[in-house]
Amino acid sequence: MTTEEKFMRLAIRQARVAEKEDEVPVGCVIVKDGKVIARAHNRRQNTQIATYHAEILAIERACKKIGFWRLEDCELYVTLEPCPMCAGAAINARIKRIVFGAYDRKAGCCGSVYNLPTDERFNHRPQVEGGVLCEECANILSTYFKNKRKTP
Amino acid sequence: MTTEEKFMRLAIRQARVAEKEDEVPVGCVIVKDGKVIARAHNRRQNTQIATYHAEILAIERACKKIGFWRLEDCELYVTLEPCPMCAGAAINARIKRIVFGAYDRKAGCCGSVYNLPTDERFNHRPQVEGGVLCEECANILSTYFKNKRKTP
Repeated sequence: MTTEEKFMRLAIRQARVAEKEDEVPVGCVIVKDGKVIARAHNRRQNTQIATYHAEILAIERACKKIGFWRLEDCELYVTLEPCPMCAGAAINARIKRIVFGAYDRKAGCCGSVYNLPTDERFNHRPQVEGGVLCEECANILSTYFKNKRKTP
Repeated sequence: MTTEEKFMRLAIRQARVAEKEDEVPVGCVIVKDGKVIARAHNRRQNTQIATYHAEILAIERACKKIGFWRLEDCELYVTLEPCPMCAGAAINARIKRIVFGAYDRKAGCCGSVYNLPTDERFNHRPQVEGGVLCEECANILSTYFKNKRKTP
């Protein structure tokens, strides 16, 4: 198991927590110096707050943990390719590297619809690695939506 | 005074609150049915949380206020053109219209660097109006940064 897979497994565990809470199952962990400093899952449905994606909540927690808004030595692991809001949050937080699982062809902004982190016009450019444990991350989402459609 | 100017004045008032707290002076209000339902100012410096831009905080408060993550009939007024994170948040929250004051040529994502809200690939497209009380909104920011440079 690679380091990327090890931390993606922890993000997947967060996605499973979301799943149990009947949230769209996306999970995220933030890693600094080889240690997880923040973990979060999507909470939009249960809080009814539009911005409570896993990445936003994890970045918020990581900032609180280290007491600094710049997460310069931090890596963000997330099971789904970040949307514009979350890719933008990673840029704003000076995240060093974004590692994501499944691709989001409809709203992903780390390569699919846009590739915001690589845009040289912004003042920070996180590295991006996509497709880590891709199939497993995608399956969690597709199973969730399949079951949703079955529920009357 | 137009309706846009009236609400932008309230956003400017929020920017002035940020200024007093020695934050980058950006303010935001969210309007529904002609009434302000949420107001917020940038709080990144004092909280040390990277995501605490005025728009994110205002959207969060508006969602809490109405108890629903979809701000479909809401207009977001902000003194500075939204960054990728905040433009993305407005799309995610199904904001009806974004009205901003000053243009942000370096990071603005409502026309300057990108125009995310008009992208037909996303599942929601807020209308955008830029440049309302543009000069006043820009002056608050330029005065803030000029004073910052003077401080030893």
